[in-house]
Amino acid sequence: MSEVTNDKLQNAFFKLRSNKLFELFVIGIIIFSALVIGVKTYELPEGLISVVAILDWTITIFFLVEIIIRFIGEPDKKRFFHHGWNVFDTLIVVMSLVPIEDSEMALIGRLIRIFRVLRMVSIIPELRMLLNSLLKALPQLGYVMLMMFIIFYIYAAVGSTFFASINPDLWGDIAVSLLTLFRVMTFEDWTDVMYETMEVYGFSWAYYLTFIFFTAFAFLNMVIGIVVSVMEEEHQQMAKEEAELAGEPTLKDIQAEIAELKQLLQSKTG
Amino acid sequence: MSEVTNDKLQNAFFKLRSNKLFELFVIGIIIFSALVIGVKTYELPEGLISVVAILDWTITIFFLVEIIIRFIGEPDKKRFFHHGWNVFDTLIVVMSLVPIEDSEMALIGRLIRIFRVLRMVSIIPELRMLLNSLLKALPQLGYVMLMMFIIFYIYAAVGSTFFASINPDLWGDIAVSLLTLFRVMTFEDWTDVMYETMEVYGFSWAYYLTFIFFTAFAFLNMVIGIVVSVMEEEHQQMAKEEAELAGEPTLKDIQAEIAELKQLLQSKTG
Amino acid sequence: MSEVTNDKLQNAFFKLRSNKLFELFVIGIIIFSALVIGVKTYELPEGLISVVAILDWTITIFFLVEIIIRFIGEPDKKRFFHHGWNVFDTLIVVMSLVPIEDSEMALIGRLIRIFRVLRMVSIIPELRMLLNSLLKALPQLGYVMLMMFIIFYIYAAVGSTFFASINPDLWGDIAVSLLTLFRVMTFEDWTDVMYETMEVYGFSWAYYLTFIFFTAFAFLNMVIGIVVSVMEEEHQQMAKEEAELAGEPTLKDIQAEIAELKQLLQSKTG
Amino acid sequence: MSEVTNDKLQNAFFKLRSNKLFELFVIGIIIFSALVIGVKTYELPEGLISVVAILDWTITIFFLVEIIIRFIGEPDKKRFFHHGWNVFDTLIVVMSLVPIEDSEMALIGRLIRIFRVLRMVSIIPELRMLLNSLLKALPQLGYVMLMMFIIFYIYAAVGSTFFASINPDLWGDIAVSLLTLFRVMTFEDWTDVMYETMEVYGFSWAYYLTFIFFTAFAFLNMVIGIVVSVMEEEHQQMAKEEAELAGEPTLKDIQAEIAELKQLLQSKTG
Repeated sequence: MSEVTNDKLQNAFFKLRSNKLFELFVIGIIIFSALVIGVKTYELPEGLISVVAILDWTITIFFLVEIIIRFIGEPDKKRFFHHGWNVFDTLIVVMSLVPIEDSEMALIGRLIRIFRVLRMVSIIPELRMLLNSLLKALPQLGYVMLMMFIIFYIYAAVGSTFFASINPDLWGDIAVSLLTLFRVMTFEDWTDVMYETMEVYGFSWAYYLTFIFFTAFAFLNMVIGIVVSVMEEEHQQMAKEEAELAGEPTLKDIQAEIAELKQLLQSKTG
Repeated sequence: MSEVTNDKLQNAFFKLRSNKLFELFVIGIIIFSALVIGVKTYELPEGLISVVAILDWTITIFFLVEIIIRFIGEPDKKRFFHHGWNVFDTLIVVMSLVPIEDSEMALIGRLIRIFRVLRMVSIIPELRMLLNSLLKALPQLGYVMLMMFIIFYIYAAVGSTFFASINPDLWGDIAVSLLTLFRVMTFEDWTDVMYETMEVYGFSWAYYLTFIFFTAFAFLNMVIGIVVSVMEEEHQQMAKEEAELAGEPTLKDIQAEIAELKQLLQSKTG
Repeated sequence: MSEVTNDKLQNAFFKLRSNKLFELFVIGIIIFSALVIGVKTYELPEGLISVVAILDWTITIFFLVEIIIRFIGEPDKKRFFHHGWNVFDTLIVVMSLVPIEDSEMALIGRLIRIFRVLRMVSIIPELRMLLNSLLKALPQLGYVMLMMFIIFYIYAAVGSTFFASINPDLWGDIAVSLLTLFRVMTFEDWTDVMYETMEVYGFSWAYYLTFIFFTAFAFLNMVIGIVVSVMEEEHQQMAKEEAELAGEPTLKDIQAEIAELKQLLQSKTG
Repeated sequence: MSEVTNDKLQNAFFKLRSNKLFELFVIGIIIFSALVIGVKTYELPEGLISVVAILDWTITIFFLVEIIIRFIGEPDKKRFFHHGWNVFDTLIVVMSLVPIEDSEMALIGRLIRIFRVLRMVSIIPELRMLLNSLLKALPQLGYVMLMMFIIFYIYAAVGSTFFASINPDLWGDIAVSLLTLFRVMTFEDWTDVMYETMEVYGFSWAYYLTFIFFTAFAFLNMVIGIVVSVMEEEHQQMAKEEAELAGEPTLKDIQAEIAELKQLLQSKTG
């Protein structure tokens, strides 16, 4: 294939992948693939199963073609795999091409097909932005989450030390205790857990109440942390936009102009 | 009926429907109709049942008369049905006029009579405004809700793939799995659901914990989104009102006046 | 008693009731009376019961004396009963003086003694202010709460119409249905309620899900309403305080001064 | 040991304890000690138990050495114990040195070893700051919490007066009633508690509903209180930083300069 044909192809595919209709069509196929996944969870008659299997392969091949179009349409081939979502899309598509016979592996094959629904996020820019902003908020919460984990770990260690003999299913080791404490934090039948240990250690209600207070307080702190940081950002951006839009001078500008006026007055009347 | 009488009637009815007392009377009747609906849910002696039935028809006829007064009182007949609430009121009243014999349909007849309580919203302007502001906030949340639905859908597909054989009542197909996941999100006996699947898949706690984290995080994001947008709006309106009320000049006005002063100084003393 | 002695007494008691130590002493007695109430809920030996009864009467008499001191110390007798808390205090004290023999009434007597703990709120100004600010926030929420009640009422009417025959304990009449819906709103074993009705009406999950969405949304709206109104108030007060403290001129003041300067310039150099 | 060697040692140790690598190493050891604590909650084979015991003593000795280095490295010995965290660290280390034979006391020994995980907070400045800011927020909430306790106490007294004979396990005395009310506040199977008492006192739903409303309202108030105070602080600091960074003059400065200008004008042209 000559260079020229290659470039023409690239241009054509670049136009195609930037096309709004093409994008809508891809979104439609993703929704359709999600519906096929949903249908597969029902018990189907023999005939429908083969129809669904054919649909499944059609979708897989469509996605393969779409990725190839995207790749050929990309002017700078090297940058294509620098975008995390392109790598994700390619992996999902390539992995769903692998033919699976084994029944054990079949489940993984189905799992990969399910993750194709996530392509929705990769293709709609607003969802991509939303996810990015969620991920950006996480590191700010790092220390609060570390603190929360320390609280959980200490209470889990105390719990499995004292309560392991009362109910090994709930307090047998530190991992199980962590899960039990998470359950207590969600208030899920936490009194059943408490009443059981209170029969042996009468004061164990203090263990649960302090734990609930600490985690609720830390959680509240986390929420407030997010709210404050989001609002601050919003506020700064708003202030910036306002200033830019209105061409509003700062008080410093006004001060400078008054100083200029003073100088003018002194030089003229001096 | 001549044009003149018609106009006179229209004027009289327009005055009537704008009358505060008439409005209060209609609200009173709506509250009374709500009470009648409430009374009907109790087991009543034979005598009271017929009293209630008569009251029911009296209310229906009163509502019919009221709608007719509103319609005749409307100066521009065409615009009457442009208001969604007028259409809603008319539909509810007309549909409760249909005589129902069939016991199956009788339930629907009772349902329509229950929806008459919603006329409260149509008649009190503050409630109408409240509902409008609620509905206005919804589209902003569109993408967060779409993201949440994608999370739900993927987890439901995974859940019904792996857990369907463990408990078909909870994970049998994708629709049932979605309901089960909603239950998990509300923390309603979610550990019962988890412990059951953990007996087969020991690591399935990760499925529930990640799901809870994702949905809680997305939900938090939604709440913060609403709070921020509401406060921004409030803030902008407040700033606008302040500026308008006080006749407060902007810094730009001040700058312009100083420039004027400078020019004056230069021309006078030059 | 002559006028003069009366006035002297009034002055002495006025000083006494404004005394910080006297106030602390009264708070101490209230706390002590709360402890006595707590002690009475335990099963006590014969001897202690009579001790507690004596303590109880001592506290009652102390409170009576205290109210009399407050009343005599009040310069304007008529205004004494204009303060709601004074009326509340007097009622509680007078009612606990009534000797009760009947065992039925004895419970009411105990109830009145329990409400004496509320005197804590009447005597500590910060708690009184807190309660006032809570009560002040309520009317703002009036319409949201009315909307919420309408949602509850319609769902309760629908619920008792369709589900009464399935479980009369939960949906028998509109009052019971309202209680069941409140339970659903708190997510308390709501799936048990739902699964039961889903066996008859397969689509009744829509009833619960829409109800949860509506109430959660209305509740969220209420919370945001409070947050926004509290912050606005805070913000306005802060802005006011800042302006007052710093003696900061407004932009309008600056504008006026520049105008003055201009006039001066014109008159001098003209 | 001469003064000079002492000083040299102090300097060397001061440098050591300020060393970033040393700090990371200590954090590593704390994490390792946390893992050892976790491992001990599992049932271990004979061989591993002795390994863990040796690791435990190694960690204890390491912590002892570290505290000694910190103490010697401190230039002002007296101030060392003025820092709460130093006292906490020393206590934890010294107490884990006490050899314990008794099985009863062995549990306390394990507890102390668990609390060593808290040294994480004492060594990472960000966590220390987080904890301080949490503790600083608490006193502001003092009155709201007092109000909440009064509500709890009154309801607990009423509950144990009326319901003690219905279910002594839940309402036997005021302490148990307080715990039951806390359970009701977390919505944990609260309807079970309610339905039981409603069989005797038909109107007891009012008791639970008012309690839920009061506590939810007070809790909401507390959350809003924290949010508002945090945001105010944030806001003030932001305003301060902005003003400092930009060297922005205040409106008062501008006013002063205009006044100066006026004087200049009057003196020059007068």
